[in-house]
Amino acid sequence: MTRTGDARRGAIVDRAVHMASAEGLDSLTLGRLAEALRTSKSGIQTLFGTKQELQLAIVAAASEVFKQEVSLPAEQQPAGLARLRTLMSSWIDYLEIFEGGCFFVAAASELDGRSGPVRDAVEDAVARAEALLQRDIELAVRLRELPSDTDVEQLVFELHAMLLQANHDRQLLGRTDALTRARNAVNRRLDVKPQPGDGAQQ
Amino acid sequence: MTRTGDARRGAIVDRAVHMASAEGLDSLTLGRLAEALRTSKSGIQTLFGTKQELQLAIVAAASEVFKQEVSLPAEQQPAGLARLRTLMSSWIDYLEIFEGGCFFVAAASELDGRSGPVRDAVEDAVARAEALLQRDIELAVRLRELPSDTDVEQLVFELHAMLLQANHDRQLLGRTDALTRARNAVNRRLDVKPQPGDGAQQ
Repeated sequence: MTRTGDARRGAIVDRAVHMASAEGLDSLTLGRLAEALRTSKSGIQTLFGTKQELQLAIVAAASEVFKQEVSLPAEQQPAGLARLRTLMSSWIDYLEIFEGGCFFVAAASELDGRSGPVRDAVEDAVARAEALLQRDIELAVRLRELPSDTDVEQLVFELHAMLLQANHDRQLLGRTDALTRARNAVNRRLDVKPQPGDGAQQ
Repeated sequence: MTRTGDARRGAIVDRAVHMASAEGLDSLTLGRLAEALRTSKSGIQTLFGTKQELQLAIVAAASEVFKQEVSLPAEQQPAGLARLRTLMSSWIDYLEIFEGGCFFVAAASELDGRSGPVRDAVEDAVARAEALLQRDIELAVRLRELPSDTDVEQLVFELHAMLLQANHDRQLLGRTDALTRARNAVNRRLDVKPQPGDGAQQ
């Protein structure tokens, strides 16, 4: 049975996401990808056209992994603190999926000084992930599971920071306790009880 | 007056650090650097020999900037919480020095999937910076300005996380309030009063 073009594209992109997480999205050449996949460079070129098209397919594939591994498990939880905790916990787990750690952290750092559609796609994916975090914090506040005076954007900032640090310590410094440290920090940060009657004035 | 080789090397490296913070240490070619400096590629090659030697010189120059802008201002403060606060505050300021944000965050993310002397130099510089943070936290605990049961490594993790997040939000998402958010998080995290008599048992 011959694999269809779509299936072949999928298989190439799957490998490419891992390589890009470790080596960088821009450093990944069609030649090196062909070598890793034991296929021809021209075969990859036929399927993707340009390097930019391949890069956009890689960003889309990484977004799909994030959705499956992080967003969907959270959506299955009841709205509020339970969903927020699952979102953070799955997000921390997901840091171990790609060979080179979080694909988006690597891509963000690599591309943030540039412009163009690939950078825009990475920025968009990161902004959407942070928006999930913001929505779940807002719901937890509305459900009075977090204090009514919670600075939502500040909390998004502090929770997302733990993911960046865990990825950094694990990838650069080889610290095996990095993910546990992130879990501890998140648990402590979310262990904020609303005051009795909190929110009653609003 | 002819500039000496050392002065010329210094001028080239100064420009190269900025470019590497934005474009990546590995993406920076001798050709592009020569173009930016309006000099010849062979002239740069004569001064540095290999691309690796240039990269190591860039890491050393960035370390020197960190020392001047972050470590030294902190050393001038009395040991303990005052020094720790200055270290964090100068470190947050320093995120604005290079064109592409923190040179080390960019280099760490770019090189963490590789091996070799340049990666080792970056890892070493980051580990030394985190060691400063650890030392100042330990001093603050010993001076009873932080609780005696402070988990020092956890606090290093959480404080450094704010720097990564500030850099990330500023560079990728263009958030102008990122540095203020980091300052708020650091202030809140360090606003932990020791219990009365805390440490008396030790």
